[in-house]
Amino acid sequence: MSGKVAIIFGVGAVQGLGAALARKFAKEGMNVLLAGRTQEKLDKAAESITEGGGKAATAIADVTRPDEVARAFDAAEKLGELEAVLYNAGNNAIIPFMELTPERFEEFWRVGCLGGFHVGQEAVRRLLPRGHGSILFTGASGSLRGKANFAHFASAKAALRNMVQSMAREFGPQGLHIGHVVIDGVINGEMARSRFQAYLDKLGDDGALEPDAIAEAFWALHEQPRSAWTHELDLRPFKENW
Amino acid sequence: MSGKVAIIFGVGAVQGLGAALARKFAKEGMNVLLAGRTQEKLDKAAESITEGGGKAATAIADVTRPDEVARAFDAAEKLGELEAVLYNAGNNAIIPFMELTPERFEEFWRVGCLGGFHVGQEAVRRLLPRGHGSILFTGASGSLRGKANFAHFASAKAALRNMVQSMAREFGPQGLHIGHVVIDGVINGEMARSRFQAYLDKLGDDGALEPDAIAEAFWALHEQPRSAWTHELDLRPFKENW
Amino acid sequence: MSGKVAIIFGVGAVQGLGAALARKFAKEGMNVLLAGRTQEKLDKAAESITEGGGKAATAIADVTRPDEVARAFDAAEKLGELEAVLYNAGNNAIIPFMELTPERFEEFWRVGCLGGFHVGQEAVRRLLPRGHGSILFTGASGSLRGKANFAHFASAKAALRNMVQSMAREFGPQGLHIGHVVIDGVINGEMARSRFQAYLDKLGDDGALEPDAIAEAFWALHEQPRSAWTHELDLRPFKENW
Amino acid sequence: MSGKVAIIFGVGAVQGLGAALARKFAKEGMNVLLAGRTQEKLDKAAESITEGGGKAATAIADVTRPDEVARAFDAAEKLGELEAVLYNAGNNAIIPFMELTPERFEEFWRVGCLGGFHVGQEAVRRLLPRGHGSILFTGASGSLRGKANFAHFASAKAALRNMVQSMAREFGPQGLHIGHVVIDGVINGEMARSRFQAYLDKLGDDGALEPDAIAEAFWALHEQPRSAWTHELDLRPFKENW
Repeated sequence: MSGKVAIIFGVGAVQGLGAALARKFAKEGMNVLLAGRTQEKLDKAAESITEGGGKAATAIADVTRPDEVARAFDAAEKLGELEAVLYNAGNNAIIPFMELTPERFEEFWRVGCLGGFHVGQEAVRRLLPRGHGSILFTGASGSLRGKANFAHFASAKAALRNMVQSMAREFGPQGLHIGHVVIDGVINGEMARSRFQAYLDKLGDDGALEPDAIAEAFWALHEQPRSAWTHELDLRPFKENW
Repeated sequence: MSGKVAIIFGVGAVQGLGAALARKFAKEGMNVLLAGRTQEKLDKAAESITEGGGKAATAIADVTRPDEVARAFDAAEKLGELEAVLYNAGNNAIIPFMELTPERFEEFWRVGCLGGFHVGQEAVRRLLPRGHGSILFTGASGSLRGKANFAHFASAKAALRNMVQSMAREFGPQGLHIGHVVIDGVINGEMARSRFQAYLDKLGDDGALEPDAIAEAFWALHEQPRSAWTHELDLRPFKENW
Repeated sequence: MSGKVAIIFGVGAVQGLGAALARKFAKEGMNVLLAGRTQEKLDKAAESITEGGGKAATAIADVTRPDEVARAFDAAEKLGELEAVLYNAGNNAIIPFMELTPERFEEFWRVGCLGGFHVGQEAVRRLLPRGHGSILFTGASGSLRGKANFAHFASAKAALRNMVQSMAREFGPQGLHIGHVVIDGVINGEMARSRFQAYLDKLGDDGALEPDAIAEAFWALHEQPRSAWTHELDLRPFKENW
Repeated sequence: MSGKVAIIFGVGAVQGLGAALARKFAKEGMNVLLAGRTQEKLDKAAESITEGGGKAATAIADVTRPDEVARAFDAAEKLGELEAVLYNAGNNAIIPFMELTPERFEEFWRVGCLGGFHVGQEAVRRLLPRGHGSILFTGASGSLRGKANFAHFASAKAALRNMVQSMAREFGPQGLHIGHVVIDGVINGEMARSRFQAYLDKLGDDGALEPDAIAEAFWALHEQPRSAWTHELDLRPFKENW
């Protein structure tokens, strides 16, 4: 099997952002490796790609475990030449600061930041010898500032952001395009639909971010010529109050 | 004449960013109105579009004069339905703070910010009734922070940026996509080539921003679906030290 | 007459921030020159200082006029050795973007930024030869970001901020301490009391910034040893929702 | 024993910042609890306070262990009423991204951020019932942005910063003053003196931040009236190139 390959970490429900990212990169002709924690979800997301004629494979990977991350990269490289690495793992929850246990606080960091470290390092290891490729990360408004009841989330996302910015400054001049997409608003995906459909209804048409629309922005980043690279951009619904 | 129309303010030399923006939007099928201060330059830039089969017209406009700005919009609307407004006017120079005259300091603001106000207001006036359209502005690293010997420039660009951000928050929910592109690095255009070719040579391949590459980013902004709009993104050469 | 001198631009009502700044610097032993546009207000503010044993003089000065600014500095230097320059001029108003005239937009910039340029340049001219002294500016949350209906204000304050940051980078290494105080919240001064007392009442105790409390922060900046200077700090009431 | 109490985490060498912070708060009349990992260093730092007539006690505490943090707070409360909590723990090192092990990356986060979580939570637990008190954290320029070879450090400091900002927004309105001091430059303390004295020499007089000067800024924060609180300020030597 040959061709260009994208690996996407953090693929869950077929309606979610991870699956949409994989679909977009596949639609543009890349073979895609979908990495996530639930085989059943990965399979459905992969089917949504292969049905349309795309090439997709899956790997179970907990991003907090470097060995599983490396195995997912191994699987990706069997599909062809790795060109794009997308880190979309993460979670969120409203938790008052005094209700956080150290374990919960740490868990947010492990998924939100440490996983990005494992994936980022493995990506550089494999892309740097060829001197090109994209490594793109999903951020949030919490990446930029703290907020009451979101200390754990804002802390983890800021940790990821500054790590990614450091990587960009270190590896950009060596040909790797390292980007950070700040998503400011609710994503119209599985998570929001199952937890607060009423809120989505209230937001109305295009009031929440469509995963496919976000995926367009990731693809546009990947396609940028190296004389004009974007490191960071924000994405929000037109009616968002920011 | 019918079709979708883009108007670009700040079109100078055919190798510059303004001309590249016009070329890109024309290539994507829009009729373009090129506005600038020098008819000869406008003509050459327009020719580079019409030669390729694109539709282009020109208007002499000093952005610091609201009447001239309005006339350029009138000319644009004769080409079809206005959909995109690009503000690319501006200038730069290294001037120690104590060598600035109040007149020079003001001049930077008039071109860098007040012109953007005139264009922004006229754009909203014409786009808001239809509830959609893009208004995109060229920024710089000086938009984000001050620097020794650049007080005049950083001040004017910050003034533009916060005005544009205010517009985005006011008119985004009414359907207008208002964006700000932060260019961090030297543009490989007429200005740099005529003033410091040696520096460009030293930067090497893709060490300066290619105008056509920047234009891709503006177009990608214009094309974004309204559920996931970018307000601000940075652009820099891969080897830039930032 | 001898002693250390502070000059404060933007002194209005005796309950306002300009007067409080002058009072604080006088209380700490400096002779103060109060500059503003209304002699009657200047006189009352000066009285509030001389009553307490402080030394104060006044000068009518429109900050948008460099000659008047220079004359105010001349008057200050008659009081002793100039050590501190405070720029507190500015205004604010809620104005929808499309209701702004170019004249109104410009007026905000002239008072909010150009006046700061005149004062800043004159201050450097007089302080640099001795290689020390503070030049401190009043900022606002609008200095940092735009907001609907505040394009004029946010634009002018950002223009001031980046100019000031440029000055700091240029003149800090030459011994001048250039600072910017971001005030985020309503000041419990004459302006707020006359325009929206009901809102102040709703904010409750310490819900608005006390001018005397703000003045403490300016003084603390002025007193910093040069091995650890602050360029920017924020100030807001403890109960502010930010 | 009665009186107001400050507890300082991250006290090492007597010439360092932790000791300087303790000295300043003691000099202003507070009883101080010095917490750190090395009894010998704590003893010397405490002596430098008691010699001058101040009241100081010590506690061995590894900030990454919540039980040790809690015991240090217990010891502090034996000295009187807790009013100020200072978090100054942290470390730094230049490490290329690809030379980081996951363990090293995590270690930076544990000291730089998780320790701040333990201290922050314990501080809120003890201060909130009385509705006042300061919790102040030491930041760095890495808190704001990433840099090549500093991914681990910038990530940990950003994680701390957004956690602290979240705390400020959550507990400010309940009377707790939560602040973050961004130190931008080299501190003229034990660490720099032992590792790169030549560099300090090159910086010259006041070219590095004096610990006592930094301590003044922390004290000024602690003293602010609640109508005008600073959440964040920067500190750098006058000649720093930033």
